[in-house]
Amino acid sequence: MGKKPQTLRGFRDLLPKEALIKQRAIAILRETFELFGFQPLETPTLESADLLLGKYGPEADKLVYLFQDRGGRKVGLRYDLTVPVGKVLALYRNQLPLPFKRYQIQNVFRAEKPQRGRWREFTQCDIDTFGVQSPLADAEIIQVIYTSLTNLGLKDFLIQINSRQVLFNLLARAGINEKNRQLSVLQSIDKLEKKSPKAVEAELAHKGLSSQEIRAIFQAIKRSEPDEELKEIFRLLKINKIPERFWQFNPKMVRGLDYYTRAIFETVVTKPKIGSITGGGRYDHLIAQLGGPEITGTGSTIGLERIIEVIQEEQLWSGLEINPTKVLVTVFSPELREKSIEVANQLRKAGINTELYLEAEKKLEKQLKLADRKGIPYVLIFGPEELKKKKFILKDLRQRKQKELSFPEILTALKSSQRFFEVSSSKI
Amino acid sequence: MGKKPQTLRGFRDLLPKEALIKQRAIAILRETFELFGFQPLETPTLESADLLLGKYGPEADKLVYLFQDRGGRKVGLRYDLTVPVGKVLALYRNQLPLPFKRYQIQNVFRAEKPQRGRWREFTQCDIDTFGVQSPLADAEIIQVIYTSLTNLGLKDFLIQINSRQVLFNLLARAGINEKNRQLSVLQSIDKLEKKSPKAVEAELAHKGLSSQEIRAIFQAIKRSEPDEELKEIFRLLKINKIPERFWQFNPKMVRGLDYYTRAIFETVVTKPKIGSITGGGRYDHLIAQLGGPEITGTGSTIGLERIIEVIQEEQLWSGLEINPTKVLVTVFSPELREKSIEVANQLRKAGINTELYLEAEKKLEKQLKLADRKGIPYVLIFGPEELKKKKFILKDLRQRKQKELSFPEILTALKSSQRFFEVSSSKI
Repeated sequence: MGKKPQTLRGFRDLLPKEALIKQRAIAILRETFELFGFQPLETPTLESADLLLGKYGPEADKLVYLFQDRGGRKVGLRYDLTVPVGKVLALYRNQLPLPFKRYQIQNVFRAEKPQRGRWREFTQCDIDTFGVQSPLADAEIIQVIYTSLTNLGLKDFLIQINSRQVLFNLLARAGINEKNRQLSVLQSIDKLEKKSPKAVEAELAHKGLSSQEIRAIFQAIKRSEPDEELKEIFRLLKINKIPERFWQFNPKMVRGLDYYTRAIFETVVTKPKIGSITGGGRYDHLIAQLGGPEITGTGSTIGLERIIEVIQEEQLWSGLEINPTKVLVTVFSPELREKSIEVANQLRKAGINTELYLEAEKKLEKQLKLADRKGIPYVLIFGPEELKKKKFILKDLRQRKQKELSFPEILTALKSSQRFFEVSSSKI
Repeated sequence: MGKKPQTLRGFRDLLPKEALIKQRAIAILRETFELFGFQPLETPTLESADLLLGKYGPEADKLVYLFQDRGGRKVGLRYDLTVPVGKVLALYRNQLPLPFKRYQIQNVFRAEKPQRGRWREFTQCDIDTFGVQSPLADAEIIQVIYTSLTNLGLKDFLIQINSRQVLFNLLARAGINEKNRQLSVLQSIDKLEKKSPKAVEAELAHKGLSSQEIRAIFQAIKRSEPDEELKEIFRLLKINKIPERFWQFNPKMVRGLDYYTRAIFETVVTKPKIGSITGGGRYDHLIAQLGGPEITGTGSTIGLERIIEVIQEEQLWSGLEINPTKVLVTVFSPELREKSIEVANQLRKAGINTELYLEAEKKLEKQLKLADRKGIPYVLIFGPEELKKKKFILKDLRQRKQKELSFPEILTALKSSQRFFEVSSSKI
């Protein structure tokens, strides 16, 4: 027996139950994104270090997983999904007619200190629309966020909307005009959601702002109003019938990343306390910065792991089965093994996920116990007695009931029994 | 404008059409695996170098992507899906009741020289059954391979079956008894599929085997027969009604990896010439080698990229659409934009993937051209005239026909039009 292996700190193995929830959530998102006309895209896990560095700000650069490959090239692991799609637009511009609407669901890597709920590898689900100046595109992104979260079963969330333009105007009114100084002040304003105004004031003073400037900033925030572009987005959200309790104008919301230029959006949940579950906005110059033409983009990331945490902690998927398998077909005796094989294949032919008990020598009791431990909801049992009557015993392990049924009755019973959480498009 | 970015050599960006085919193929595989009672599993992209090295043989070790992370730990990128599941079984033994049947669909990385059809990052789809000694498990793996390939639309493939035990007995009969020497000879025998017997003879002579030994080996191959275990597997394949033109006993098939101990399977296609598209077998000691208990496993990898190559080159998915979007809703004029939004939302409510034209100012002709370039099959058009009559014009871009229809008629037309390639369970 070798040395006990380990999983690296900050990384996770997803055992069947967790992997299944994640897969089902991804299927729902994929279906929702495609419903709105977004097309899939995939980019490599490894990119050249040149591409990754200098796009996310100096703090983020430290979190990029960098290394030299065997050919001595500096490479890094995917850090987000926006820079890669920028690369794709720069490289394959002619194959991608504008407007281009893409979704992308892939893992990203951050060399962060491991802590609760923060992983070094996690899944991002991004939607972005490129080449559309109209606020219709921003409103549609917000509509897709709303529909996605609703389809995933979330009932309490708030999409906060603001605009970088509104924020820059606000700073200009407070006399802060230099770009880097503006960005630095915005980073402090962003903390108003978590820290007291006093703490943020102190931070701004520490950054060298005069008390007059600080007062002017706080006053400007209080008086902040949506610009024409945001007003048009809000009007479109109403036309799209997105209930107003799910979104609001928040003049203090900033979004960390430097590349946003106009509307920005972020979704927060109050239960459990895990902060934002989506984040995005409009970026006008990123594609050009990445070597492509000047194409405007607007989009959002949906944080899958945090949403799954909400689903689990709030028990939103009540009909959740922990195994995609519907029924275990038992083997009564070695002589009846072939009959069990045949029955299992017939169930599969009818589209029912079926496990056949593979170790023929075990007692029935052991077989039932296996189904129970695996979370398989039904067990099919038959011996020579039942076969004579052309009947089967269907045991419901959760309700601890059993019935003697014909094969067509078995099919009906298994097909009509509660299915896994499914997408409903009723919320659009 | 920055420097033009690049994608690393040996890596790929999957543009929407390719990404869509891949996603649909994965959905079909996932559905097939779950039909047979396999549960999903996911493991990290990064593992400690200790775990990855020494498991695949010295040649393969050179292909593992290795690097030091920021904490100085030696880590590597996932090389296959068997070693990770071995780790999972060693770590979480008590949470995974035996028999444990898992499927895993994730990317793996190989630092190979880039060449046609070989990528440094590609997707593997693995199924494995752990803890079952009975050949029922091997036969079921072969049945799942057959069903998966058939569900994917493949019509010409051959599952080759052999046994390491049969091969070792054959070598013993030829007087080759030492384990490492046996493995070395097997590697040469494996080449009989691609090279002439003469070339293989020369290679064996070069490895130091006497001409007498070489003659004995070739005679033993000719006389090779399935052992009891293989015979039982073949009997079960017949019971499962897997047509005999899809599988055969092949005494020269070896499988490269060292860890197989008994039955081995490999699927080949003749058109196009891309070699094997699945490979697997039974391994009795791998889990223990990985630090876990002695648990037998049997399973197979399904090579997604190569299968997609077959599907594309042989045009097996004839009904293939290149865009998941069914219809583009046009905007006739700025005044009718809100009506277009409403119609798009109604289509989505009915479950129809719908793109709304987002730039309201463009001419209708431009909008139609966009749908055509994007591969969206239908366009919905309406102006004030149609609205008065409560009608819409549905244009079929592939057939270059159009009809004036009511909204319920539009729904019927779009719902009944040919859908994307779907799983049929008819082949089980």
